[in-house]
Amino acid sequence: MFRIALDAMGGDHAPDPNVQGAIEAIAQSEELHVTLVGDQELLESKLAEAGGGDGRITVAAADGVVGMHEKPTVALRAKPNCSIARCWQMMAAREADAVVSAGNTGAVVAAGLRTRLFLKGVKRPGIAVTLPNLKGKSVLIDVGANPAAQPRHLFQYAVMGSIYAREILGIESPRIGLMNIGSEEGKGNELYRDTHTHLSNSPLKDSYVGNVEGRGLYQGDADVLICEGFVGNVVLKVSEGMAEFMMKTVGGAIMGALDVERDKAGQVLHELTQKYRYQESGGAPLLGIDGSCIICHGSSDSHSVRNALKMAFELKAHHINSQIVDHLATAAIAAE
Amino acid sequence: MFRIALDAMGGDHAPDPNVQGAIEAIAQSEELHVTLVGDQELLESKLAEAGGGDGRITVAAADGVVGMHEKPTVALRAKPNCSIARCWQMMAAREADAVVSAGNTGAVVAAGLRTRLFLKGVKRPGIAVTLPNLKGKSVLIDVGANPAAQPRHLFQYAVMGSIYAREILGIESPRIGLMNIGSEEGKGNELYRDTHTHLSNSPLKDSYVGNVEGRGLYQGDADVLICEGFVGNVVLKVSEGMAEFMMKTVGGAIMGALDVERDKAGQVLHELTQKYRYQESGGAPLLGIDGSCIICHGSSDSHSVRNALKMAFELKAHHINSQIVDHLATAAIAAE
Repeated sequence: MFRIALDAMGGDHAPDPNVQGAIEAIAQSEELHVTLVGDQELLESKLAEAGGGDGRITVAAADGVVGMHEKPTVALRAKPNCSIARCWQMMAAREADAVVSAGNTGAVVAAGLRTRLFLKGVKRPGIAVTLPNLKGKSVLIDVGANPAAQPRHLFQYAVMGSIYAREILGIESPRIGLMNIGSEEGKGNELYRDTHTHLSNSPLKDSYVGNVEGRGLYQGDADVLICEGFVGNVVLKVSEGMAEFMMKTVGGAIMGALDVERDKAGQVLHELTQKYRYQESGGAPLLGIDGSCIICHGSSDSHSVRNALKMAFELKAHHINSQIVDHLATAAIAAE
Repeated sequence: MFRIALDAMGGDHAPDPNVQGAIEAIAQSEELHVTLVGDQELLESKLAEAGGGDGRITVAAADGVVGMHEKPTVALRAKPNCSIARCWQMMAAREADAVVSAGNTGAVVAAGLRTRLFLKGVKRPGIAVTLPNLKGKSVLIDVGANPAAQPRHLFQYAVMGSIYAREILGIESPRIGLMNIGSEEGKGNELYRDTHTHLSNSPLKDSYVGNVEGRGLYQGDADVLICEGFVGNVVLKVSEGMAEFMMKTVGGAIMGALDVERDKAGQVLHELTQKYRYQESGGAPLLGIDGSCIICHGSSDSHSVRNALKMAFELKAHHINSQIVDHLATAAIAAE
């Protein structure tokens, strides 16, 4: 049985999409057990209302929740037994194999870093998101877990992102790119120049395609794009905002120009909007954790929560963690 | 007469769009004089072919050009009299009032910084681009001139960006936002936290709306968004890449679904593509220069070059520089 601690109080619409997502997930995967972590009375009543979940959904009590706009460190200090902190405590105590949350991303990460549940050899975990591009999909890592990245952290993101791209996205030989302000050698600040040198001389050098400009993210110039957390977070959110902007602008112009086929176009636009919304609200793994942690978009619906719960299990099924540990050990030996 | 030194050799398709753009610009603005800087023989022949330009277009000789993928510092050392270096030398010698180039952006900036032609009080010039959003337009500054931004530089970008937004975009009271990874106080790294404190206690505090997440750029949460050059450059190029990705994806889906009104939709998509392409290839000013410098997209056509030449004059006509100097002087007094 794969046991997931779900932060049932996290997210803009909690707890309903979390309870519902858990019910959907266990219905689809026999190996899953989900613990709804949060307000015990509320969750037990929501669970009973929703049908109960055949014994593979249980409830664990937590005190309070970190709000979406609270400052993580302050909130975690004030509410040490809040839902997300309890989830991580369960994983640290080996009572859960994974943590899933649609709550305050900063709090999910901060609560996790406190447990120091890092995989052997990992310096800093990183959040990996999957984004579409003209050739398929790529992984962008880190989008905000690590505010003080060093070259060796970015190197580890390349290792972790490549394993994730291969195992989960099915890209046989992922090409690694370093997000930078120009494709030429020597571009960017010290962090990026040193990372470029580091990667060019690492066991990953044959997969490393060099610096990639921002344009390359959506042109598919690399399958794994590494960057430090501030840049990655801004890129991710600019992308979300621009997708919305483009859908509205292009949609408005098309709908305004059409007459008899307006409904057909409307249907296509609606489906695309759903598709992009779905992509952005799917779960993103915090890679480098001994266990699994999947971070969902705050606006997640039950469908997204269900997918995140299933993804936590996927990471386990594909032995992502043991592969990360093995690759980092090999790289460490090569560097000696 | 407003005299512009045009880097006639700069850009993916140089020199033709530059020569043609100069001819179009002087035809539309009686105040302009353009010097085509570059290969004298080639430019004189191109100019004669194109009709000559009534004496308000002249040619000045330069040796060589910095290629689009050359490393700026290395190239400028090897070719001290290349076209972009000569343009800046002309402005430094007061033989030109403005520099316009569609060449290697890094080289345009590097050649400019060498002349130290900074406005009084300006610590570091910054590149400002204008981007569309759901409510209108906003200015993003800096998108790559300054690789080592400090809080006082970002404060100056807020001053310069606001004046630009008011005078050129016609936004009466521009709202200033700090691009960050969360809207709450205390977000981001030291640079952003210190800049937030600096702005919150500055003469701009009433116009300052605080931290703005990436999403806010396209939602129009601020009229002027300030950030350091690495982040701004990546954001700009990710945006360009994503616009292309969205137009192709949405366009393809719409065209595939339609039948009798396919041509109508195709026309709308074509116009939108032109509109976005035009926006990205319009000129971006390097603000903070004593004179004017407009940087065009490498893929600029004659239309874009013409607009950049006109914009150089617009900055002068709106007294952007004297306003920047006045505001910085006032802010410096307030800070004492």
